[in-house]
Amino acid sequence: MIKTQIPDVIVGRLPRYLRALKILRENHTTTNSKELGELLGFSAAQIRKDLSQFGEFGKQGTGYNIDFLIERLQNILNIDQDWGILLVGVGKIGRAILNYPGFSANRFHVKAAVDCNPDVIGERFEKCTVEDIKDIKKIIKDNQIKIAMLAVPAENAQKIAEELVADGIQAILNYAPAILSLPPEIRVEYSDPLVSLQHMTYYL
Amino acid sequence: MIKTQIPDVIVGRLPRYLRALKILRENHTTTNSKELGELLGFSAAQIRKDLSQFGEFGKQGTGYNIDFLIERLQNILNIDQDWGILLVGVGKIGRAILNYPGFSANRFHVKAAVDCNPDVIGERFEKCTVEDIKDIKKIIKDNQIKIAMLAVPAENAQKIAEELVADGIQAILNYAPAILSLPPEIRVEYSDPLVSLQHMTYYL
Repeated sequence: MIKTQIPDVIVGRLPRYLRALKILRENHTTTNSKELGELLGFSAAQIRKDLSQFGEFGKQGTGYNIDFLIERLQNILNIDQDWGILLVGVGKIGRAILNYPGFSANRFHVKAAVDCNPDVIGERFEKCTVEDIKDIKKIIKDNQIKIAMLAVPAENAQKIAEELVADGIQAILNYAPAILSLPPEIRVEYSDPLVSLQHMTYYL
Repeated sequence: MIKTQIPDVIVGRLPRYLRALKILRENHTTTNSKELGELLGFSAAQIRKDLSQFGEFGKQGTGYNIDFLIERLQNILNIDQDWGILLVGVGKIGRAILNYPGFSANRFHVKAAVDCNPDVIGERFEKCTVEDIKDIKKIIKDNQIKIAMLAVPAENAQKIAEELVADGIQAILNYAPAILSLPPEIRVEYSDPLVSLQHMTYYL
């Protein structure tokens, strides 16, 4: 499969292309690498090069058909299907995740939420009722969940992440300010504002 | 200066190196590219190559002195100083930002918060009292703020971002689910869980 051949940094840009295309779709049916580049802050050459990794999407001179490109990118990213998510940790960040409408609008559905705090277990949210973290093995299996969002204190993150992986989780979006050390086949993405800030100050 | 010569993707990895080094420091005084790589999920070769961009940090065979490397990376990233931050938008995400202790523990200080909602303006938080968004020009100037966190609805993000830039902001951490189109010299980082999720599903 092409999965191993495409550099991960390019794959990481595709969701941004998708978001830009959805904005452009409101007023246009076609676009081109120059217009996309201006919206995204990338060069037109970069965009042509990135997209060429996945096949022929546009024609010289006429540009890209937006609907077609959106459909292809969604297919490439495997987001032309629904995904269930397990939320681990229902503190401040966990609550913001449960209340955020943007996930299910994009076919990511929080199927279950767990916590270890007895005061929180049993609390009802629109999407689910908080369950006991002790039951995650069964919850993951019953709901066939592959993706977890980890919103626990930093000191518990590694241990819980290892348990999630042992129970079948294949991808973790980590909100805990901790680095996770997991087998290479497990996908980990970090949602860490501090890392973003420290990246920007390099240029200031 | 070296700023323009180092690829941004490498700069973006330095904050992660820093975090890993701070974890290692708790039990070690030296480390090496293999150990760092295992903690971060990068290859040892990648780490040696990245760090070599910024000078000689370690010796063949003896590895890196952790304190020295932390100090150097903090200096390179310009985080051996305090930074003031303007928070724009005090909704759910804005409140989580105001209550998060991790920023000021790392020398990023929310100096001011603004909103347009009269019910929110005047609300007191430990770090600041919410001010009227109409006054941002003066707030940015008085506090000499260069960094903004944007936590407003998507439909207002571009317009407000343009105003921030006109008022002197040079870097924006964008929590709004919108792509910002700004002059190339303005640094924009996105805190967007959806982009992270859509990146991971490629591999599932």
